[in-house]
Amino acid sequence: MATETPTHAADEPSLADRDALLRKAPVTPSSPMRLRMEALIHGWQKRIVAELEAVDGKSFKVEPWTRPHGGGGITCVLQEGNVFEKAGVNTSVVYGTLPRAAVQRMRADHKALDLDPGAEGLEFFAAGLSLVVHPRNPHAPTVHLNYRYFETRDAQGRAAWWFGGGSDLTPSYLEEADAALFHQTLKDACDKHDKGYYPRFKKWCDEYFVNKHRGEARGVGGIFFDDLDSTNGTPDELFGFASTCLAAFLPSYLPIINRRKDAPFTEHEKRWQQLRRGRYVEFNLVHDRGTAFGLHTPGSRVESILMSLPLTARWEYMHEPPAGSREATLVEVLKTPRSWV
Amino acid sequence: MATETPTHAADEPSLADRDALLRKAPVTPSSPMRLRMEALIHGWQKRIVAELEAVDGKSFKVEPWTRPHGGGGITCVLQEGNVFEKAGVNTSVVYGTLPRAAVQRMRADHKALDLDPGAEGLEFFAAGLSLVVHPRNPHAPTVHLNYRYFETRDAQGRAAWWFGGGSDLTPSYLEEADAALFHQTLKDACDKHDKGYYPRFKKWCDEYFVNKHRGEARGVGGIFFDDLDSTNGTPDELFGFASTCLAAFLPSYLPIINRRKDAPFTEHEKRWQQLRRGRYVEFNLVHDRGTAFGLHTPGSRVESILMSLPLTARWEYMHEPPAGSREATLVEVLKTPRSWV
Repeated sequence: MATETPTHAADEPSLADRDALLRKAPVTPSSPMRLRMEALIHGWQKRIVAELEAVDGKSFKVEPWTRPHGGGGITCVLQEGNVFEKAGVNTSVVYGTLPRAAVQRMRADHKALDLDPGAEGLEFFAAGLSLVVHPRNPHAPTVHLNYRYFETRDAQGRAAWWFGGGSDLTPSYLEEADAALFHQTLKDACDKHDKGYYPRFKKWCDEYFVNKHRGEARGVGGIFFDDLDSTNGTPDELFGFASTCLAAFLPSYLPIINRRKDAPFTEHEKRWQQLRRGRYVEFNLVHDRGTAFGLHTPGSRVESILMSLPLTARWEYMHEPPAGSREATLVEVLKTPRSWV
Repeated sequence: MATETPTHAADEPSLADRDALLRKAPVTPSSPMRLRMEALIHGWQKRIVAELEAVDGKSFKVEPWTRPHGGGGITCVLQEGNVFEKAGVNTSVVYGTLPRAAVQRMRADHKALDLDPGAEGLEFFAAGLSLVVHPRNPHAPTVHLNYRYFETRDAQGRAAWWFGGGSDLTPSYLEEADAALFHQTLKDACDKHDKGYYPRFKKWCDEYFVNKHRGEARGVGGIFFDDLDSTNGTPDELFGFASTCLAAFLPSYLPIINRRKDAPFTEHEKRWQQLRRGRYVEFNLVHDRGTAFGLHTPGSRVESILMSLPLTARWEYMHEPPAGSREATLVEVLKTPRSWV
């Protein structure tokens, strides 16, 4: 766990109060990472929303919201568009105090426990950009992205920080070229920072986005990482990595949506997509740590969390695609993750 | 926790082996409760399936299945019927050994912990009937029922047992007459056994079937109980109570489905029903203990567990019914449970 020498006593102003003051000046590379991350995700939110609107022709509904106990967010949703059945691009910048057990659930490795086990609650900061895009066309894949930064501070003023994030693709029909383009773009982004990142985070993604109860991955993967702290690099280095990954999103997805959005499709293919949407719901509600964390946090904004769910989904008892069908090919790949690059 | 004087040493045959022998003779009131419960749920499964088929005009698909480690079940599903979008009536009779923590999760009060905390795993028996009916017509409510019986036996041969169950109604549009009929039928059944049961189990139902993240009940309730053991009555008394409740199901629901199944409805009403189905999915996947227990138990039959999900569901960002609408009336009742009898 990354720790800093305490620079302020417990009776000093809260992170929220300090940042409110700092926010009056422009954000520069010497601003606190909290403000740099906030500026980064707000910038990408605007740009991504604009690019998706250009693809769809319809506009996102933009809703800023505040939390009673500090911070807030901006939720952008496009529903029943021309290209997108439902697309959500959400940022949140949140200050608060949480019971230690809850902070612990924020991290995959539960490291927060190591930090002063006696203390009751921790002051925390979380900033993140989350995005889920469910296209109408069953040949166009769903995509998900999330990049986030956390800080905690205990009563003694000791700080800890970490980054998390990733992006993954969920097709209803396997298009190998799409999976390859998506993975190659993410690999190129990773390789700029550390040649070990892509293999490590590709594997983490394959292991995380799994409907364990079905022994089936949610999609064809991408990258996923959590708990990146000082054992992996300086804050500057890891912020740089998150920035490169965010910049890779549009090149990783726009070519795919553009070549699939107008593909002809049948009722049968639409129905299969709806069944796959059901699996997406299962993963998000049963297994996803972020969703569980949000839904069990009092005062969280449920509509922003569940914006990730598709507009429509379907569950048929014992549905099994016939052997050799394109539907069966997808399921096979989900049961045995492949290398794409 | 109910315990019996051990009647057999740890090296005696397993419950499954003993029952296999006993199953060759007819089940009588002096048979072990395991076999009596099995006969009860199989009898009601047949009868309920027949009555629902008579309403729908289409037949259930009947699938018996076995578990690799003992026992099995019969799953009956009717999908895309004339009246029912999806209806499932499932029985399972399962023998196995589970880690103590898992057995503990079977009980709301986690009492299994008290029983020989040193032991690693417990031999268990579970028999239950589960039913979920999602009608097509948005004016016809979804209904759920579950009655179950558990036994555990530790390495010293010490046994414990308990009953659980209940039934609840989930309308998309509030029909007070339906809620009243449903509750009155359940109250009459409870009152035959204990005047304290209905108020106690009605409250338990209102508290259990709640989408806590939305501060909203799943439906208009019914009854729910768990952990009914020797502190509540003899095995005979509690079996009698479960029998009366099961017998109350058809009178509590058939009059409702018959008067609503052909009601005229609009596209708007169908869409609202789909949104309510989304809430049903949220409860089952995020909060329901039984579903979580099943999905996290290795070797469980996922398709039988998730048969409870509707055929189709919908999630719209920030959907809010206009004040004074029939949709708003329903949500109001879900936020503030009422007395119906």
